[in-house]
Amino acid sequence: MSSPLNPPSYSDIADAAERLAGHAVRTPLLRNDVLDERTGARVFVKAECLQRTGSFKFRGAFNRISRMNADEKTRGVMAYSSGNHAQGVAAAARINGTTAKILMPADAPRSKVEGVKFWGGEVVEYDRGTQNREEMGRAIAEAEGRVLVPPYEDPFIIAGQGTAALEASEQMAEAGAVPDVVICPAGGGGLIAGTGLAMLHHHPAARVWAAEPVGFDDFRRSLASGRREINERLTGSVCDAIITPTPGELTWSINSGQLAGGAAVSDDEALAAVAFAWRHLKIVVEPGGAVALAAVLTGRVETRGKTVCVIASGGNVDRAMFARALESL
Amino acid sequence: MSSPLNPPSYSDIADAAERLAGHAVRTPLLRNDVLDERTGARVFVKAECLQRTGSFKFRGAFNRISRMNADEKTRGVMAYSSGNHAQGVAAAARINGTTAKILMPADAPRSKVEGVKFWGGEVVEYDRGTQNREEMGRAIAEAEGRVLVPPYEDPFIIAGQGTAALEASEQMAEAGAVPDVVICPAGGGGLIAGTGLAMLHHHPAARVWAAEPVGFDDFRRSLASGRREINERLTGSVCDAIITPTPGELTWSINSGQLAGGAAVSDDEALAAVAFAWRHLKIVVEPGGAVALAAVLTGRVETRGKTVCVIASGGNVDRAMFARALESL
Repeated sequence: MSSPLNPPSYSDIADAAERLAGHAVRTPLLRNDVLDERTGARVFVKAECLQRTGSFKFRGAFNRISRMNADEKTRGVMAYSSGNHAQGVAAAARINGTTAKILMPADAPRSKVEGVKFWGGEVVEYDRGTQNREEMGRAIAEAEGRVLVPPYEDPFIIAGQGTAALEASEQMAEAGAVPDVVICPAGGGGLIAGTGLAMLHHHPAARVWAAEPVGFDDFRRSLASGRREINERLTGSVCDAIITPTPGELTWSINSGQLAGGAAVSDDEALAAVAFAWRHLKIVVEPGGAVALAAVLTGRVETRGKTVCVIASGGNVDRAMFARALESL
Repeated sequence: MSSPLNPPSYSDIADAAERLAGHAVRTPLLRNDVLDERTGARVFVKAECLQRTGSFKFRGAFNRISRMNADEKTRGVMAYSSGNHAQGVAAAARINGTTAKILMPADAPRSKVEGVKFWGGEVVEYDRGTQNREEMGRAIAEAEGRVLVPPYEDPFIIAGQGTAALEASEQMAEAGAVPDVVICPAGGGGLIAGTGLAMLHHHPAARVWAAEPVGFDDFRRSLASGRREINERLTGSVCDAIITPTPGELTWSINSGQLAGGAAVSDDEALAAVAFAWRHLKIVVEPGGAVALAAVLTGRVETRGKTVCVIASGGNVDRAMFARALESL
């Protein structure tokens, strides 16, 4: 957590987009006839599962790490992550000529651990239920002189994540579409902070919604109460990628003023959205990356008759979980 | 089969691309770090599974049906198909304001049958092992005055399918890449005929390979012998989308002069490619659509050190078959 808070602005997102050009994938914005008929809306899906390393996290990580100086690159980076940020950091570190050490929960999907190792990242495990990853990460970073790359409490990270929505905004314009509603998965709130900044800059009348798992709906409750609420648990959802204790202090300083509200979807609804994306969109989305799509499919965010942008934030999912999702068909 | 043969040229593909603008999806050309490391090549994957109706077939069907006159549209279209062409025809018919009646094999994946029905197409079943779909289709078309939309023996169909490779060629140019090798699934040969015409126009030095299932490698054997060879069987492959008795007469008149050769992959290799695409590319590819990717992953086409374009032609696959593919991981 940075203090004093130093939130990024729209121009930081535009700057990040320039930095990411040629490194990040300009992911496609998908539409689908069945999806539109099912929802009665005009729905566009930003397929960040097709991003390098399988999620939007590469964007923020690359934006942050590419700004390290030569001395910092010699010492390397440190990150803590449920998996997607880990892969993004490992890849961005390798591409920028530095090393990464990553704290990952012991129950992280195998595919995410292997993704980190593919990029040469060193994995250190922690227990998601009993250990504080922020404290552990900070301690290792200090001991080894590594630059800590936090998952969301950093203006460069937020600005990098916002480039996905900046692209989506441009892609919707190419399709002659103006979003009435934008729905984005929310964990710590970095992606949705950048998403809101980018989307509301271009479309000030759009309403931006957070999508979360039931029981881990800290954003929904925080937006209702006006203060950062804390989840009772940190385990027990299929949406491992977006389970965090509470909205970040920095991300909340942005999101509290820009979000229309939050929608909570059940595990079954998230899995049904994964299956829908498999069957109709032909993309692989992980449960945590599918909560915004689930919010549209279930009607938890009212979208009938509207033009909608949904962020499908990642696709790193183990085989067993994916098979479970397909069983819901 | 048309006689005399009237093969399309490159300009017919460019014309089809104009006609498809705003109707077909400009599907993304994907690359992947793991794929490049695994193969030692620079591989680009044209993700036609993300096309409208889940496969490239929409392109040819739309190009053909959009040219029907008002009288023809009153009577409707007729098609025979293992599934993907069926969905493409049903969608193109609906969008062009006409009706479609479709002959589908009784063992076609349920998802493909439902795809046809979503678009208002009327399904008539036939037995893939004992009935001749060409004869049945022609009889119904004549009785009802419907325009027969064949799956590949038609210059508008071939030109429409070629627009995928035309896009891929443009997308590779945007990425600063020139294909040394192009690999494309081959059933009747319409997609690969259009693919070769488009690719070799822009890249005359490229070598274009057909990918097929073992035991249904009529293209590979025909290219070796110089005449249209016939498969012994018409059932028994997981690659249902690309099982045809022999190269089409019209498609062969194009392909015989432009292809470098054929590569046959086993069922297990096709399923492993489906699983690879799920895990790393985050796209849903059906076994028949994954044979070109399988040809690269297995090394059946030599690509080490080369720049490669692979066509992933479709993603319409039933849950059970997909689960079987994931078990290969």
